[in-house]
Amino acid sequence: MAKVKEISRRQFVASALTTATLASLPIDHLFAGAMPNQSASAAAPMSAPSWKDQGIENLTKSPHAKLRNIPVHAVTIKSGFWAQRREINVDKSIPSMHDLLEANGRMNNFRRLAGKSSAAQSGPVYSDSDVYKWIEAAGFALQSGDRPELRATTEKMIEEIVAVQEPSGYLNTYYVDAHKPERMLTKTQTTGHELYNIGHMLQGAIAYYRATGDRRLLDAGIRFADDFLMSSYGPVPKQPIVAGHPEIELALIELYRITGDRRQLDLAGYILQGDARMKLAEERTVYMFSGTPFTARTKLEGHAVRAMYACCGATDYYMETGDPAYWTTINALWNDMTATKMYVTGGVGSRSDGEAFGNAYELPNDRAYGESCAAIGNMMWNWRMLAATGEARFTDVIERALYNGINSGMSLDGTLYCYRNPLAFDPATGEKIRNPWYDTTCCPPNLERTFASLPGYFYSTSSDGIYLHFYDNSELDWRLENGVGLKVTQKTNYPWDGKVEITVTPAQASNFTFYLRIAGWADSAQVSVNGKVVTGAKPGEYLAIKRQWSSGDTIHLQMEMPVQVLEANPQVADDTGRVAIQRGPLVYCLEEIDQPEGVSITDLAASPGAKPETQFQSEFKSDLLGGVVVLRHTGIAYDQAASRNGLYSRYNSKQLQSRKVPLTLIPYYAWSNRQQTAMQVWTPVVKT
Amino acid sequence: MAKVKEISRRQFVASALTTATLASLPIDHLFAGAMPNQSASAAAPMSAPSWKDQGIENLTKSPHAKLRNIPVHAVTIKSGFWAQRREINVDKSIPSMHDLLEANGRMNNFRRLAGKSSAAQSGPVYSDSDVYKWIEAAGFALQSGDRPELRATTEKMIEEIVAVQEPSGYLNTYYVDAHKPERMLTKTQTTGHELYNIGHMLQGAIAYYRATGDRRLLDAGIRFADDFLMSSYGPVPKQPIVAGHPEIELALIELYRITGDRRQLDLAGYILQGDARMKLAEERTVYMFSGTPFTARTKLEGHAVRAMYACCGATDYYMETGDPAYWTTINALWNDMTATKMYVTGGVGSRSDGEAFGNAYELPNDRAYGESCAAIGNMMWNWRMLAATGEARFTDVIERALYNGINSGMSLDGTLYCYRNPLAFDPATGEKIRNPWYDTTCCPPNLERTFASLPGYFYSTSSDGIYLHFYDNSELDWRLENGVGLKVTQKTNYPWDGKVEITVTPAQASNFTFYLRIAGWADSAQVSVNGKVVTGAKPGEYLAIKRQWSSGDTIHLQMEMPVQVLEANPQVADDTGRVAIQRGPLVYCLEEIDQPEGVSITDLAASPGAKPETQFQSEFKSDLLGGVVVLRHTGIAYDQAASRNGLYSRYNSKQLQSRKVPLTLIPYYAWSNRQQTAMQVWTPVVKT
Repeated sequence: MAKVKEISRRQFVASALTTATLASLPIDHLFAGAMPNQSASAAAPMSAPSWKDQGIENLTKSPHAKLRNIPVHAVTIKSGFWAQRREINVDKSIPSMHDLLEANGRMNNFRRLAGKSSAAQSGPVYSDSDVYKWIEAAGFALQSGDRPELRATTEKMIEEIVAVQEPSGYLNTYYVDAHKPERMLTKTQTTGHELYNIGHMLQGAIAYYRATGDRRLLDAGIRFADDFLMSSYGPVPKQPIVAGHPEIELALIELYRITGDRRQLDLAGYILQGDARMKLAEERTVYMFSGTPFTARTKLEGHAVRAMYACCGATDYYMETGDPAYWTTINALWNDMTATKMYVTGGVGSRSDGEAFGNAYELPNDRAYGESCAAIGNMMWNWRMLAATGEARFTDVIERALYNGINSGMSLDGTLYCYRNPLAFDPATGEKIRNPWYDTTCCPPNLERTFASLPGYFYSTSSDGIYLHFYDNSELDWRLENGVGLKVTQKTNYPWDGKVEITVTPAQASNFTFYLRIAGWADSAQVSVNGKVVTGAKPGEYLAIKRQWSSGDTIHLQMEMPVQVLEANPQVADDTGRVAIQRGPLVYCLEEIDQPEGVSITDLAASPGAKPETQFQSEFKSDLLGGVVVLRHTGIAYDQAASRNGLYSRYNSKQLQSRKVPLTLIPYYAWSNRQQTAMQVWTPVVKT
Repeated sequence: MAKVKEISRRQFVASALTTATLASLPIDHLFAGAMPNQSASAAAPMSAPSWKDQGIENLTKSPHAKLRNIPVHAVTIKSGFWAQRREINVDKSIPSMHDLLEANGRMNNFRRLAGKSSAAQSGPVYSDSDVYKWIEAAGFALQSGDRPELRATTEKMIEEIVAVQEPSGYLNTYYVDAHKPERMLTKTQTTGHELYNIGHMLQGAIAYYRATGDRRLLDAGIRFADDFLMSSYGPVPKQPIVAGHPEIELALIELYRITGDRRQLDLAGYILQGDARMKLAEERTVYMFSGTPFTARTKLEGHAVRAMYACCGATDYYMETGDPAYWTTINALWNDMTATKMYVTGGVGSRSDGEAFGNAYELPNDRAYGESCAAIGNMMWNWRMLAATGEARFTDVIERALYNGINSGMSLDGTLYCYRNPLAFDPATGEKIRNPWYDTTCCPPNLERTFASLPGYFYSTSSDGIYLHFYDNSELDWRLENGVGLKVTQKTNYPWDGKVEITVTPAQASNFTFYLRIAGWADSAQVSVNGKVVTGAKPGEYLAIKRQWSSGDTIHLQMEMPVQVLEANPQVADDTGRVAIQRGPLVYCLEEIDQPEGVSITDLAASPGAKPETQFQSEFKSDLLGGVVVLRHTGIAYDQAASRNGLYSRYNSKQLQSRKVPLTLIPYYAWSNRQQTAMQVWTPVVKT
């Protein structure tokens, strides 16, 4: 197994071959012939997809995955909600971030090692990863269609990167020169992000490979993994490893899904379990969410992005091995998160201090951290849980995070980014929430790779049919797992409307199940096929429509999309006496700029009354924030600004005078795209 | 002026004289003859009090102080609320803290420099201050009456301290040996606490001097100030100073009040204004609350203890100089604090991060920092504001902090301390809230010195009479400013009852005003003198009773003490939909241990209804927590523990089932004195 892979890798000395040559070489075919078969119960192996037909994750051989990804190129998102975002992403965000990476010396870090730049090393120890994440964004963008300029830019960057890989396989622009002796020391492993950088390099390499067939960066990653890492590090008698920032685990497993080299999977498993030889302080293993056995964990804690990436790696490991201890742990952690630690926006990581998960129900609003990267990690993890199970509760979490806590992370014009995504904000604090650049610029390219990869999340295949996960005007052109070609067209005004018309066009009339997601937020849903009602649609589940599908069959899905007034569990102290407003998948907020002049947002209260859904009116405003449905509500404002009253007063004895005022709510993701004013998601309800 | 003082100081070479000799020397007399007279409008100078008749602050010559302190020994607190606390303080807390300081090497730090210990330096850079604060606690305790053993212990410590003062006047156990070159570097000044340590040394020295007349530590402090500090540091052309942690300012001014050496006052003023030569980062000057002109500040921010001590120093400076810019700033800061940044417990400093003030209305409950030292600093500052003005609003803040946010800082048995004083607590977080020792052990001796000094806060004199600030069974034996002897006896069950009987016994029938504080928490109050009603009592003001007082005149004060249900300003997001319960000066809390078994405290809500004060019943429990009034209330508990419901649900659509349950509230100060269970001050009100 390893031998086959090693031969294949050695055939491709990156600098000696052109992209075109590389793309034509039969690596996946080699792998297909050597596929592992750990599970007797796994479905018969399909033929391995070529590089261009691999999805975000290549689960074609994963014995414990129920669903399999479709390639990004198989779905074209047409005009609509995500098309707008994705166009800006590829036209503005990705190019401008490239320029900023250059302007901030991140590529010169590589050039310096090749003697082509005299600039000093720039940025934190994880700066290489920002370049790699950008390459991954470019790779996903190119999977949706060639863009010669973007491809040329990326190719040049890759050339400059692989040029400075050391003969040993080592590649890092920080641990060189004076820092070289620090490589892979225990302290460096816990804080130095060497393997984190390489994890992102592998992910970038894989996305670019799947876009272009170009293996140069991928092979550099394999050289690092094989020649440098696995030759000297791992279980006894090798030197121990700890993932100071989990990331290498999921990257190694995705690499294994390409190479078939079982050692890569095993190494990921070894890292997930930690190595006792490291003798790490408990505080550190909590923070890193690594270094102790993953399967001994009982709750989410520590650095939120680290925890989410660790959960991604663990779920990938489960899908390959079926290890029940992993499954038990992953589910316990998921329950812990969704029952006690996730914002209504899908954001996670309450604490700025340590960018960390808080205690159960610790969900502050203005002080919320909710790092963009953590919400993305949450989406990535739930994507893996969905693949493992086919259960819609995971899709609901993805949608919540995607439309809200992730989508808020990039400005509508695609050039400014949130690092943290609070649920309440007061500009008087002096904080600037959206910025073009952060010295730790992890979030911007993470958002870019996510939006670029979005088509790959719309559908999955299963052994018995196809799953539709997300709604937007789009066309799928792919095939069922039995090889029958399948096109699916969605027409919708989602997320502004819950109506979706779906045309199913198999290449030939065919019996299979169409799994239609009924969103968890829906109160109810009606489904018909060719005008005939299909019963059984339950919000938060996939409706399995098993029939013979013929060209032109049409599904009508209508999900009721009333305004929903939410309250939090009484245990969430920060939300006591407050409500959040949601419509469809979108969480709404109040921005001061939209409210009556002179009224401070903290002097307002909502008045949902006994029939809350009747107290909010929807109105589509095409000229506002790129076109959004705003909500109108008659709330109250205190006549005398609350800030001019005392700090504490007698309950009920001095009821504040108030008047009715028209309030306007906008989708949370669109906040702070005009003048930066005060904002809140959780609004007090007026005392009755 | 300075010359007189210098001569007087040089007469007392600490190690050459006995305590008895020192006490008999006429230092204060020398000073009295050389008193500064900066204000033409100041009252005619009184004769300077001897060391033993000086109060917590010696304001006898302070031209802009309206009130003057009485000495601690002038008030004897009899059996009752504070007597119990103070007895434990002197019998248990002070001795056990001495043993812990020893056990943790804090005295060995001094002995090592004398060659009498081979132990390595122990503790953080500010460890000397903990010893000095303990000496201050001992000094105040000894002001209430001699305790030979405590005195001998303290004297021995002082001997060991002064023995290692360097000939230059320098004294510090950290910046020696290898750290010696770091002395007074800019970095050391901003973080090294050299002057903070000396500030506490001076305060300790002054308290001990006022207890015993022993000047040895005081003279060591003067040597540091004169020989080391002022000879080389100060305005151009000397080296610049910054108070990395304000403390030296108020200490220097109190020193000035003993020595009359104007240079000490001027140096405090110089430090309060900062020295631009230091070129400090804004972040640092915000955190330190120093390094930029105090009079340019507009809000409380940064490290709360630093800010409070800086405000103390600034108010002291105002009382000596009358500088109107100081008065304007101090009042702006006071308004900022009391209107937007003070907990209902009188605690300040919301943020653990930086132990800092938060933004306006940022008052989290479970994450509240509310460091004991900061609440003490708040009390100290308001004591100075009260002295400057005679206004009861400052007394109200002192009382709120003292009975709640300070009093909570020490366990009832006097051996465990809170560093932070949260307003909600969940033991599941694993935090242990009360501990015998902290490596940064600033709070424990700070609490000890506060309780030990308490009699000195009960009364003040003014040019026209006497002010009664605090109520407890007690006897005052002092004199009016005109020299007429005055005894005042209080009989009360305060704070459990709002009735106080006050007997006024002047040495001779005398016309003066008795300023009786009507507590701000009172709804109303009735006052009579010898059975005859005195009108005009207003809560939150001093009632001026001007008459001829004769021996045995009796004031009856009756303040209504209903249970009060408080709500916070709507701007306090953390208290939305919640109420706090207060009775008299005491804030109450719910501890899980007192509630029906099996009910989680976060599953409870209060049901104050339309007439909240009728919904709580008071009951004195002599066997509980040293004897407390508990409050009984019929609230609700959710039938299904909230934690088992989802994180978010529809408002009103899924009203949680609840049942009525009997709730019991205890005074906040007494929390966590049994098994550590969940606690909260701000309790949700049930939706009606």
